[in-house]
Amino acid sequence: MIRTEETICAPATSLGGAIAVIRVSGIRSLPVCEKIFFPSDKKLDLSDQKGYTLLFGEIRSGDEIIDEVLVSIFRSPHSYTGEDSVEISCHASPYIVTRILDLLTSNGAVTAHPGEFSQRAFLNGRMDLSQAEAVADIISATTSSAHRVAMNQMRGGFSAEIEKLRSELLYFASLIELELDFGEEDVEFADRSDLKRIIIKVKELADGLADSFRLGNVIKNGVPVVIVGKPNSGKSTLLNALLMEERAIVSEIPGTTRDTVEDVMVIDGTEFRFIDTAGLRETSDVIESIGIKKTHEKINQASVILLVDEVSDETTMIIDRINSIRSMTGDQDKKLFILINKTDTSTGERLDEIRGSIIPNKNENLLFISARERTGIEELRRLLGAAITRDQDVEENVIITNVRHFEALTRVSDSLERVLEGLETELPDDLIAIDIRQAIHYLGEITGEITTDEILGNIFKNFCIGK
Amino acid sequence: MIRTEETICAPATSLGGAIAVIRVSGIRSLPVCEKIFFPSDKKLDLSDQKGYTLLFGEIRSGDEIIDEVLVSIFRSPHSYTGEDSVEISCHASPYIVTRILDLLTSNGAVTAHPGEFSQRAFLNGRMDLSQAEAVADIISATTSSAHRVAMNQMRGGFSAEIEKLRSELLYFASLIELELDFGEEDVEFADRSDLKRIIIKVKELADGLADSFRLGNVIKNGVPVVIVGKPNSGKSTLLNALLMEERAIVSEIPGTTRDTVEDVMVIDGTEFRFIDTAGLRETSDVIESIGIKKTHEKINQASVILLVDEVSDETTMIIDRINSIRSMTGDQDKKLFILINKTDTSTGERLDEIRGSIIPNKNENLLFISARERTGIEELRRLLGAAITRDQDVEENVIITNVRHFEALTRVSDSLERVLEGLETELPDDLIAIDIRQAIHYLGEITGEITTDEILGNIFKNFCIGK
Repeated sequence: MIRTEETICAPATSLGGAIAVIRVSGIRSLPVCEKIFFPSDKKLDLSDQKGYTLLFGEIRSGDEIIDEVLVSIFRSPHSYTGEDSVEISCHASPYIVTRILDLLTSNGAVTAHPGEFSQRAFLNGRMDLSQAEAVADIISATTSSAHRVAMNQMRGGFSAEIEKLRSELLYFASLIELELDFGEEDVEFADRSDLKRIIIKVKELADGLADSFRLGNVIKNGVPVVIVGKPNSGKSTLLNALLMEERAIVSEIPGTTRDTVEDVMVIDGTEFRFIDTAGLRETSDVIESIGIKKTHEKINQASVILLVDEVSDETTMIIDRINSIRSMTGDQDKKLFILINKTDTSTGERLDEIRGSIIPNKNENLLFISARERTGIEELRRLLGAAITRDQDVEENVIITNVRHFEALTRVSDSLERVLEGLETELPDDLIAIDIRQAIHYLGEITGEITTDEILGNIFKNFCIGK
Repeated sequence: MIRTEETICAPATSLGGAIAVIRVSGIRSLPVCEKIFFPSDKKLDLSDQKGYTLLFGEIRSGDEIIDEVLVSIFRSPHSYTGEDSVEISCHASPYIVTRILDLLTSNGAVTAHPGEFSQRAFLNGRMDLSQAEAVADIISATTSSAHRVAMNQMRGGFSAEIEKLRSELLYFASLIELELDFGEEDVEFADRSDLKRIIIKVKELADGLADSFRLGNVIKNGVPVVIVGKPNSGKSTLLNALLMEERAIVSEIPGTTRDTVEDVMVIDGTEFRFIDTAGLRETSDVIESIGIKKTHEKINQASVILLVDEVSDETTMIIDRINSIRSMTGDQDKKLFILINKTDTSTGERLDEIRGSIIPNKNENLLFISARERTGIEELRRLLGAAITRDQDVEENVIITNVRHFEALTRVSDSLERVLEGLETELPDDLIAIDIRQAIHYLGEITGEITTDEILGNIFKNFCIGK
């Protein structure tokens, strides 16, 4: 499965721009490239070059000149992979890229698997597993929060936190195991109340990290928002008003396209994804027409609910609908925005009346808007942004965004829970030691100190080629 | 229009891969980058670096780390543009690329126009105009022939040819102008028979280059092929059989997609484009149903005609159809393939009979095929390849592919024609000198020794951003 002797190559850029970069890494990178690359300065020899050197020259196949290229040389261990590496910067022609890759493979390199460069960086100790995973997150990050969390993780912030927990546990595990070595002598190197205190502390930290996954997931995948309301209350007009500004900010970078067909907007660096709005944009009756069961499902998926009511509706009807949503969300931590729409058709007295009858709960906001006239939309955007960013502190806290890390942390917490129970019930030391070791094991899985080919395969197969 | 004082920046790769490259060029490249790039080796200073140096470090906006990047430094004049340049190699995230471009422009760089890097390379004498034009051709080349012709042009092969013609003319122009300076004295520095010989030679060379455009155009844009024949003769089955192999060779490079919706196949490095086959693939009756006028148009556009007949058709009918095509093509240099289809339903005697009655002309081939059984298809592919490559010699001759060059060469030829007429009719020297100067002017337009902002604008606006 994992091959380390081979010299691998792959395109590191996608096609369409002015230049393309081809990556080569492995023990034979320089000898392989030397066979096809000829520096313009004939006195220079590729293999003699130091790391961090650039050379200009030609890629040739026999007498045929394939391209004029720039070649960057990296020497082990000072490269992304930790191995000798070469990056060939050529013209971004599919024909040229294909020819150069063919030349590389016919001269001894093999085509890299997705993520194989990062896998090697991990195997060669250039980064731990959670850092390697962050590389993929950095590339796919589309908002400042997602970028910041991934960058912090790539730079080892998360690994340092895990390492701290792990070394605290290791200390106590070794003390207990020392006691076991002394067998019958009944010594106690590890003070049991100290141990309990430490285990509680570590468990709290692990739980805190696991808890941060809810926010991390929002940061990485966006906040799911659903718009509900009776037919013709103005749901699609509201959606258009919210997205209007967004549409103007089409990325100026050529080649940028959104993968999803969902409607998405970004407020204060957080992405809001409107659940299944494709139909909503065509008709305002969709959610109703598919019935209460479907609405329930959508509300379940959402973190934010926008309930659109008409100002002219009877107040009791509005309250009924609010209560119906409240009963669906139960005590889940969802934000509900009660939006009284079409205020342009109403009097101030009517608004005061509604304001007097509808009392928003803790997680709720009451807003008066006119989607058609675009009044109140800015305020709604601002509150949406605040609703999410209020309880997030991306700057200062370590946040996990990876479901694999979440699962490992949950297992750590479970193991430590058993340790605490064991201490309570005065379980034999060897059994307690097993649970501590298990917590240590799961922490090690996160950073990759404990790993298997299968785990590695699963992680790196989702990377792109050339990374 | 043309700005040279500004420091320009643009992404040079399209998004989607593992890494992205941002190009910066201009007199303030290093000072601008120094404000946002911080080398990991704190002792190093970006501005102190020699050309062809690589540095690793961080792009920062205030305290925020935007990315860990590699920076390549190029010093004037040893860069693509001839100016101080920096290439920033970052993670291929749209977010990161946008942030870095924002940082560059807020620190004094401006966003580059399409082709502006190549335009600067031209203005700074790093390449002439035809070489700069070849850069765009190299990027878009999809076949080996197109690539080879563009590469030859970028490396100055074509410019050398033009320069040779130009210097021969310049020599005689200056001699004649010298004579004019002597005015009444009636000296003759330029021997008139030598002059005539040289003009004929230069005109032949210019005509030869202009003639190569027909082939050059085929190489650059593909060979247009049309499939005609009566309904149900098996045209769409034939097209599928021809393309079948091609479909299997889908490019393995991620992100490669064909721009065109046309059916295309490549034989021996030459692209064959099937004209308007979209309908043909749905029904085999299209060409007939749109009538004889449309068929005529299509045959006019094509260089190669595939006429599909059924083996069971009456021989006289087949000959009628062949003659009808022949009358449409007239004496144009088109290749006609007479394909007798459905041979699997026929006897050997019938094939012999057809073979005896239908005599192919010089530019024609008679082939027996069964599109359904895929017999004779390989032979057809082979002959298609040979039909085009037979008269091409991409290796050894300079071939022009650019309509601008073709037009300039035609004007050169016209001017020289007038020179020859002038010599014949003993026109006054000053008039002859004007025509020679005109030929020199048009040659200069090709390489860009003579140029205007408008010409430059037209050429570079079709380049991609970052080139």
